[in-house]
Amino acid sequence: MASTALWSRGAAWLRSCRGPVLQRGRSREAPGVPRGRGCCREVVATCERYAVRRLPFARLADGDVAFFERLMPGRVVTGEEEVKPFNVDWLKSVRGCSQLVLKPQTTAEVSQVLRDPRVPSGVCVGEAQRVLGGAGVYHATRPGSQGQLSHRGERGHQCRRLAALEIRLSARDGAGPGSGKVLADGSALDCLTSLRKDNTGYDLKQLFIGSEGTLGVITAVSILCPQKPKAVNLAFLGCQSFAKVLETFTTCRAMLGEILSAYEFMDEKCMELVERHLKLSSPVTDSPFYVLIETSGSNSTHDEEKLNNFLEQAMASGLVTDGTVATDGKKIKMLWGLRERITEALTHEGYVYKYDISLPVGKLYDLVTDMRARLGQSAKNVVGYGHLGDGNLHLNITAESYSHSLLDAIEPFVYEWTARCSGSISAEHGLGFKKKQFIQYSKPREAVVLMQQFKAMLDPKGILNPYKTLPSALESSTC
Amino acid sequence: MASTALWSRGAAWLRSCRGPVLQRGRSREAPGVPRGRGCCREVVATCERYAVRRLPFARLADGDVAFFERLMPGRVVTGEEEVKPFNVDWLKSVRGCSQLVLKPQTTAEVSQVLRDPRVPSGVCVGEAQRVLGGAGVYHATRPGSQGQLSHRGERGHQCRRLAALEIRLSARDGAGPGSGKVLADGSALDCLTSLRKDNTGYDLKQLFIGSEGTLGVITAVSILCPQKPKAVNLAFLGCQSFAKVLETFTTCRAMLGEILSAYEFMDEKCMELVERHLKLSSPVTDSPFYVLIETSGSNSTHDEEKLNNFLEQAMASGLVTDGTVATDGKKIKMLWGLRERITEALTHEGYVYKYDISLPVGKLYDLVTDMRARLGQSAKNVVGYGHLGDGNLHLNITAESYSHSLLDAIEPFVYEWTARCSGSISAEHGLGFKKKQFIQYSKPREAVVLMQQFKAMLDPKGILNPYKTLPSALESSTC
Repeated sequence: MASTALWSRGAAWLRSCRGPVLQRGRSREAPGVPRGRGCCREVVATCERYAVRRLPFARLADGDVAFFERLMPGRVVTGEEEVKPFNVDWLKSVRGCSQLVLKPQTTAEVSQVLRDPRVPSGVCVGEAQRVLGGAGVYHATRPGSQGQLSHRGERGHQCRRLAALEIRLSARDGAGPGSGKVLADGSALDCLTSLRKDNTGYDLKQLFIGSEGTLGVITAVSILCPQKPKAVNLAFLGCQSFAKVLETFTTCRAMLGEILSAYEFMDEKCMELVERHLKLSSPVTDSPFYVLIETSGSNSTHDEEKLNNFLEQAMASGLVTDGTVATDGKKIKMLWGLRERITEALTHEGYVYKYDISLPVGKLYDLVTDMRARLGQSAKNVVGYGHLGDGNLHLNITAESYSHSLLDAIEPFVYEWTARCSGSISAEHGLGFKKKQFIQYSKPREAVVLMQQFKAMLDPKGILNPYKTLPSALESSTC
Repeated sequence: MASTALWSRGAAWLRSCRGPVLQRGRSREAPGVPRGRGCCREVVATCERYAVRRLPFARLADGDVAFFERLMPGRVVTGEEEVKPFNVDWLKSVRGCSQLVLKPQTTAEVSQVLRDPRVPSGVCVGEAQRVLGGAGVYHATRPGSQGQLSHRGERGHQCRRLAALEIRLSARDGAGPGSGKVLADGSALDCLTSLRKDNTGYDLKQLFIGSEGTLGVITAVSILCPQKPKAVNLAFLGCQSFAKVLETFTTCRAMLGEILSAYEFMDEKCMELVERHLKLSSPVTDSPFYVLIETSGSNSTHDEEKLNNFLEQAMASGLVTDGTVATDGKKIKMLWGLRERITEALTHEGYVYKYDISLPVGKLYDLVTDMRARLGQSAKNVVGYGHLGDGNLHLNITAESYSHSLLDAIEPFVYEWTARCSGSISAEHGLGFKKKQFIQYSKPREAVVLMQQFKAMLDPKGILNPYKTLPSALESSTC
């Protein structure tokens, strides 16, 4: 999988970050994270921690390995130590027990892996898919660190949607050695078009975007990128309450309008952790909340005038008590780092219970406050940060190590709380393995049944990313 | 269907245009079109003109009508004259032969219509669906006239996408007397969320958007609307060649950046027709091509400065030879009218063969030129206009009346031409009845098969908007 497993011709982002993304499989690593950090900490096997019962898949046999070696010589990994990193996520929260990793270089090879009846379905295939398709088009643009493309305010949100919408599954011009998406039976489906508009039949690619690799293997994508803005400015501000964070957002939406490209917030605990663990230093201090505002536009004079007008108003009306502005790339990057590296800082605290919640924006921080009160001393930290313009809260709870009892104190409380506010229990990351059983807190029964029908139709043997996204009646056989 | 057939609480656009949209069924009427115009012209029944073979549906019986009368007293239309307008589209190009129109007021009523085994599937249901679900969320915001929301340049395209993406099927908060989408078996599916982000399971609503009512009946939608811009400006320009239209687009994208909200073009023949038939008068004349550029922003001073800089450059470099600028609402509306009312002007010419094509932008007008040369005197007009930023050409061909021979000269030539350029044979309007057999020019066989599987799964009896969108093996029984 290391070099060209995702067939990336015509998709520049894949080329540029191909190495690290593929080396780490599905993990999402923020810039600056020491490679291999935490390897000394042994991760409990997921099937043990969560008592997963194994689906009735075949077991890997020597004949299968020989078949794959003939298919892609030198690109079949079986050594225990070599396979190990592919079995653990970056956060060290789950560990699989796959024995083999495949590194196909073309869609045709992926197709052959899935098609051949010699394939012991669910073992190698699941693994290939985990690394290949599970990379997740949604997050792929900036794995781990996020921020510049996906985490925006009003207008930025449009950009994110655009990027997701314009993702096309497949290869260039439908030609080349196979292309597109490989379905569970090994057939390839070309959904690529470089057109902005195409309303012929059903929009199939939409069903695959965000399906977490459970419906097919995405072998190539293309993304429509907006023009790079000529002027980018950033303001990093301190607010004395979450109410002021909200009011600042309303004001800046009105005054910055079309150039507002990001509105992020973080609480003081987040700031304390990035300063302590990553030795970062914030020019804005002593505030319960911090806000990062980014503008992107075509005329720096106009943009700076708009931003200054807004800042004057925000300071004069007491919405903001402290702040700094950046127009040069180096300072902008430094300030983004304070927000983007929170995830990384949290991993230094021990085990992290992570929640990715959508809520009506006015209630966003109440969940953090309520959770903090509920857990008291049983949690080390309860922190909140996220993308205010999208109503997206990242609630993170840390403890020295994983414990069932703390998990029980958090769940289903967090999902019940979210459902009461008509929120979503997964705003952007997907349900994956840990949250699939809670889908009913955000989707009605009829919708889940329909999803299960789609899954059964497209992947009747259940070999594509098993144990993920949807609760399944099949999961009753022995582990 | 006249008053509240689409359950529209929480969806302001439905309320505001409920009457006219529902009165006209699926027709799309531009502002100012005389009601009833063309009624004197008899439209040939579609089943005769195109030799449609009727699917094996039951026939309407007196018992069915009685059932519906009990279900929705006073909202069952059976009179021949009353039903007539629902059987013909606004362009007078197709005519159905339904005998009954239902006017349900709630999702629950739609559900009962579809669920009850007394329902003669495909007759009343098809008709109810034609008016209800077929209204089309994509075009619903400005039926017929289009332009301000959906037809944009670079940034405007993002807005359109956003609007489409944020459309939610269903009612408010999942409560109320039924909500959402009604499937073929009468069950209701609530896909509504007022959240911007929700990544729990598969994104079902996406499969229904653009499916032309063939998978379910959409009973309510909600749309996220961007804030109304504080400043809107418009420039209407003349260009001496299509190459200059393209170069002007490149220049204005770079110079107007984030405030560019529309880039439309039309050829001189279009201008001639709106002037002749609608008595409109253009302040810009004697140009082979006309361009309409709209800006939308938060600061009028900044926007006007950007627009003026661009215009100076465009005039100085000879890209544009004539032009006018509008900042007040009345003139803006008048200039938009020149572009938006082309469709209406064309209907005065006789029968219109309409094509809605996506192409690589550089080749956009070549199709018009080639078609004009191919058809020669056999067509009255061959005109082109559209949304350049989206690579979307509206190719329209007129003749005194419909003829098979002219159609044969146009098709499949137009589809082959488009496919050679990797274009789409339907950019935004969908395949409907007339283009479903040509889907293979834009979609690979595997994709069509998958679409047919979805259709079979969700609508096994084929009662939802029959004869539309997908070619069906079922269509071999007698008419």
